[in-house]
Amino acid sequence: MISFENDYSAGAHPKILEKLIQTNLEMLPGYGTDSYCESAKEKIRAACACESAQVEFLVGGTQANSVVISTMLKDYEGVIAAKTGHISVHEAGAVEYTGHKVLELEEKEGKIQPEVLENYLKSFYADEIHEHMVFPGMVYLSHPTEYGTLYTREELEKISEICHHYEIPLYMDGARLGYGLMSPQSDLSLPDIARLCDVFYIGGTKVGALCGEAVVFTKNNRPAHFVNLIKKRGALLAKGRLLGIQFDTLFTDNLYFEISRHAIEMAEKMKAILHKKNVNFYLESPTNQQFIILENEKLKQLKEKLAFSFWERYDETHTVIRLATSWSTTEEDLKVLKESL
Amino acid sequence: MISFENDYSAGAHPKILEKLIQTNLEMLPGYGTDSYCESAKEKIRAACACESAQVEFLVGGTQANSVVISTMLKDYEGVIAAKTGHISVHEAGAVEYTGHKVLELEEKEGKIQPEVLENYLKSFYADEIHEHMVFPGMVYLSHPTEYGTLYTREELEKISEICHHYEIPLYMDGARLGYGLMSPQSDLSLPDIARLCDVFYIGGTKVGALCGEAVVFTKNNRPAHFVNLIKKRGALLAKGRLLGIQFDTLFTDNLYFEISRHAIEMAEKMKAILHKKNVNFYLESPTNQQFIILENEKLKQLKEKLAFSFWERYDETHTVIRLATSWSTTEEDLKVLKESL
Amino acid sequence: MISFENDYSAGAHPKILEKLIQTNLEMLPGYGTDSYCESAKEKIRAACACESAQVEFLVGGTQANSVVISTMLKDYEGVIAAKTGHISVHEAGAVEYTGHKVLELEEKEGKIQPEVLENYLKSFYADEIHEHMVFPGMVYLSHPTEYGTLYTREELEKISEICHHYEIPLYMDGARLGYGLMSPQSDLSLPDIARLCDVFYIGGTKVGALCGEAVVFTKNNRPAHFVNLIKKRGALLAKGRLLGIQFDTLFTDNLYFEISRHAIEMAEKMKAILHKKNVNFYLESPTNQQFIILENEKLKQLKEKLAFSFWERYDETHTVIRLATSWSTTEEDLKVLKESL
Amino acid sequence: MISFENDYSAGAHPKILEKLIQTNLEMLPGYGTDSYCESAKEKIRAACACESAQVEFLVGGTQANSVVISTMLKDYEGVIAAKTGHISVHEAGAVEYTGHKVLELEEKEGKIQPEVLENYLKSFYADEIHEHMVFPGMVYLSHPTEYGTLYTREELEKISEICHHYEIPLYMDGARLGYGLMSPQSDLSLPDIARLCDVFYIGGTKVGALCGEAVVFTKNNRPAHFVNLIKKRGALLAKGRLLGIQFDTLFTDNLYFEISRHAIEMAEKMKAILHKKNVNFYLESPTNQQFIILENEKLKQLKEKLAFSFWERYDETHTVIRLATSWSTTEEDLKVLKESL
Repeated sequence: MISFENDYSAGAHPKILEKLIQTNLEMLPGYGTDSYCESAKEKIRAACACESAQVEFLVGGTQANSVVISTMLKDYEGVIAAKTGHISVHEAGAVEYTGHKVLELEEKEGKIQPEVLENYLKSFYADEIHEHMVFPGMVYLSHPTEYGTLYTREELEKISEICHHYEIPLYMDGARLGYGLMSPQSDLSLPDIARLCDVFYIGGTKVGALCGEAVVFTKNNRPAHFVNLIKKRGALLAKGRLLGIQFDTLFTDNLYFEISRHAIEMAEKMKAILHKKNVNFYLESPTNQQFIILENEKLKQLKEKLAFSFWERYDETHTVIRLATSWSTTEEDLKVLKESL
Repeated sequence: MISFENDYSAGAHPKILEKLIQTNLEMLPGYGTDSYCESAKEKIRAACACESAQVEFLVGGTQANSVVISTMLKDYEGVIAAKTGHISVHEAGAVEYTGHKVLELEEKEGKIQPEVLENYLKSFYADEIHEHMVFPGMVYLSHPTEYGTLYTREELEKISEICHHYEIPLYMDGARLGYGLMSPQSDLSLPDIARLCDVFYIGGTKVGALCGEAVVFTKNNRPAHFVNLIKKRGALLAKGRLLGIQFDTLFTDNLYFEISRHAIEMAEKMKAILHKKNVNFYLESPTNQQFIILENEKLKQLKEKLAFSFWERYDETHTVIRLATSWSTTEEDLKVLKESL
Repeated sequence: MISFENDYSAGAHPKILEKLIQTNLEMLPGYGTDSYCESAKEKIRAACACESAQVEFLVGGTQANSVVISTMLKDYEGVIAAKTGHISVHEAGAVEYTGHKVLELEEKEGKIQPEVLENYLKSFYADEIHEHMVFPGMVYLSHPTEYGTLYTREELEKISEICHHYEIPLYMDGARLGYGLMSPQSDLSLPDIARLCDVFYIGGTKVGALCGEAVVFTKNNRPAHFVNLIKKRGALLAKGRLLGIQFDTLFTDNLYFEISRHAIEMAEKMKAILHKKNVNFYLESPTNQQFIILENEKLKQLKEKLAFSFWERYDETHTVIRLATSWSTTEEDLKVLKESL
Repeated sequence: MISFENDYSAGAHPKILEKLIQTNLEMLPGYGTDSYCESAKEKIRAACACESAQVEFLVGGTQANSVVISTMLKDYEGVIAAKTGHISVHEAGAVEYTGHKVLELEEKEGKIQPEVLENYLKSFYADEIHEHMVFPGMVYLSHPTEYGTLYTREELEKISEICHHYEIPLYMDGARLGYGLMSPQSDLSLPDIARLCDVFYIGGTKVGALCGEAVVFTKNNRPAHFVNLIKKRGALLAKGRLLGIQFDTLFTDNLYFEISRHAIEMAEKMKAILHKKNVNFYLESPTNQQFIILENEKLKQLKEKLAFSFWERYDETHTVIRLATSWSTTEEDLKVLKESL
């Protein structure tokens, strides 16, 4: 069945599978010490225009978040996130599992407003009994957000400045980073992000890999004995080659950017179709996720023709659903969507 | 100096010290297995009109909260609390330290509204992807709240009903329970609380003891091997007698209630003085904590004559302060307050 | 270079890669809810002759150990393991990270002796102050052990009986289970293991998969909301298909057993070569790992021709090394080994 | 009943109770910021001959161990202890609860042998795959040990040297430190201990206080925001005065040393009585705990006359028991013992 359910419904980009086959019988050392990991790291450093970046591969997004956050926070610190942030609501309390609080801020379309952040930090330090409170020790952003929205360069610069004023790292969850970078509305490049964030990850799982996220420490700030900390969290992949080979392929000949651009083009065409059909948007995003409002009757019919995500009840007779494109979305898929509406 | 800073500025009620001296040379077994602990438990069960209650003593309030919450929650659960709840803001992330999330609800004068709670639970289970979310596994109330406000019997009954409908325990933080029970505005008795809550604690530290909180499990629901779990959390007192003797004294001849009533009488007189002096209330509570708004100039002067708590900035020229009475507040103290204003 | 360094140096068995390609463009739901996971589970249940078995897939061995152990232990319990057990020494304290102690027992060639286990449990409960001690809450075995040795059916039956007498689950780490099952010295079948253990995992990473371990709960004892607990530990794979497809392939046409048997045949031939060359064994195991003692001079020469694992210093002039075969070892590899010695 | 069961069976030294009464109505700030805490810290610094020492008060021994160890270890580290160390066996896994492994060493009469420690550290770093192992990050000693034995100055100097060579802190659990310092066989002074250890605690609970342990950081190495970390662990006492007043009293006019000396004198007399009665020692210690072997018949009789601790079964017909003296032991108590044997 045709699916717009999410951006991780298909397998991997064919070039990744090809490379896995090509290299399959090479005898390689484990735990990320192989030559493909090295090569992938080098290519990522180049793409980030950050020669000194320290790159580490992890298997999934929640894992990346909990490993990065728990190893970078000090014992007395928590992480600031939007109330709608993935770590706040949809990771089963993975950050709290590591002993740290998620300090939730009000948001706007999934984004932390710089003023809100600044006020929070100012008033924290104004409180005389803050020794009994969780210290804000990091800012977590998702970009694109869970609503597909994007931070502007100006916003990210402000947030970065605030973080550095308070001497706490800025961390970006880039599960869908490719789709953000390739959005026509984005004025942020990968080097911008590497410059403004202290640590971020480049999502593979949702952008064409079987699995894998590339964590990038940009300020020579990778925690000591990081491999041990990954192992301790049960997150160290024995055949690290699986991650190295995938990212090496994604960062060869701009594949990561090309397939992200394709998803965005498909999303733009999808938006045009939706407009033409006079569908009501709940949130029209500049990236690969669109949120629309459907009558419950129509929703039932649509369900028989294609897959999508239930998002939330809108009112008694309407529902919000999410439609996502990805590297694997085809013109044919869009045609089915058009006909189904 | 005269102090209205809080309700734990003085030592212990003299009868407690007397009893400590009287019993000092008795050779008693450790870890809460002595006869004074037994006697105190029996008296507390009687006061709660709950013969089957399981009573355990802990040293402090944050400790009681983190031990009770972390031992009663299942691994996949978090605890619901008001955004202003003590566990949400002023316990340094002690609940998160145990690996569980505090699920924060909007509140009104420190209280969770039954409707807000019900909506939260309803919509949690309506969300199709709640397997990736933290399950609500307990409701935490403080009574009196951090603002000195009280739940009515009707409110507590509603909340209790909601909890039981969703099969999650209701837990009451009674750090200042005595002051709540003795408030003229309270329509809740200790047996009511024992009936409506699954677990709660009777605060000693803020009601005349040197230290100590009595945790009461009302539904035969004390976690298995609870002593081991307390020990594991570094919370087991070797000389358990120190807690047993204090609570035995507090629950002899209604001492706990008498000294609480005294604090409330002092608070009522304090409120009258404040009104007479035309002081603006930020929040006039029915218990022993009052929140008033002072001009910054006046605040400076007052600071020289007596101690109080800074609460928060009100505006450029005004500040909110807290004045608390306790078992040890005297008429003389109030006279100083009157003269100082 | 030819490598006997370990059993996870090559990629995946070609049939796995083929299947990944074949299924690549199918749009499948995430998180292990796809049809390949279902099919793989069904086949594993059949292979275990345990229709009611609950099967769950995880990415790696340390992850499987920490997820299984931390979700099955009660708060007051720890896990018993051999001092040389993988969880005791080579997983960076992943079990302790979850708040539980590893209770280490003396071992013999990596194996827990039933008598030692029984004595430990007996004396634990004889100790009057065991409420202050970590309760033994599970027994962890690795089979084959870290030394390639195997439990006999008699031993496993005794250990299983002891566990059940003390009402604690028996858990088997089967990272190399295939190599154990196919050893000519083994008298244990997969159904035997499913019958005697309460939970175990069938290792994929070291037996031909890119990654993946299949956890099998045999007594209808999978912890509640297990998916949530996996997510909370950062261990839930978004594209669960990657695990489902691999295990579906491994358990089609006995592939798992065939490739394990091949590794064992290669190991037997390797042992014959080593004997012929009069190499001293440190430990000659019945599975795919062999431990030999080499003069340091010889070791240096060998290093230039093939890869192996350093194990430990034997004396001033000798070293213990490990040689491992796997599903991908060839006759050609053995020839090189023979010529190199 | 007369009791030699342990050294925490009586209440507090009368001077402590007196001081609590004297100061009872003073209105003091909470959480250890009062003047008695300050005064006690100053006196402890003087007694340690270590002006720069940072002193913090905690309520109990297990709490002190878990707070100190978990705040000083790095994430990838565990703590080395004797197999018989209190943290290894009798604290319900409190260290593991904080996510860190206790690395257990073989011991001799409860003491870590310097050579054993050195070999352990040497071979840890020799192991090529130690990135997958728990790093040794601290050495924990109890002094006196759980068997009442003492480290000599030479031993402590060697251990201190080894720790500093490997750049890990040396931590001494001084639950019974007073009894160690006052033993005629001890050649270690409090300033020696402050010089050789990086952190240690001076036990109050077992040496005349109602509760309380004074943690001493000797190298300006107290973890940042230590009060917050204590609060997070539920270990911050609201009425910190309770600890401050007790330690201020114990360190006034040498009270701590005087009452410790008394316990030792009583122990020496007890040993003389035991020898005279031809009792078999299991371990005759130089401090306040003695371990003797009794026929089970005799044990039953003794039980009716006085209290003692069961230690362990010796053989079919004999049992090891522990007899402890303390600051409160009297000549009268010894007379009863003599007559009872």
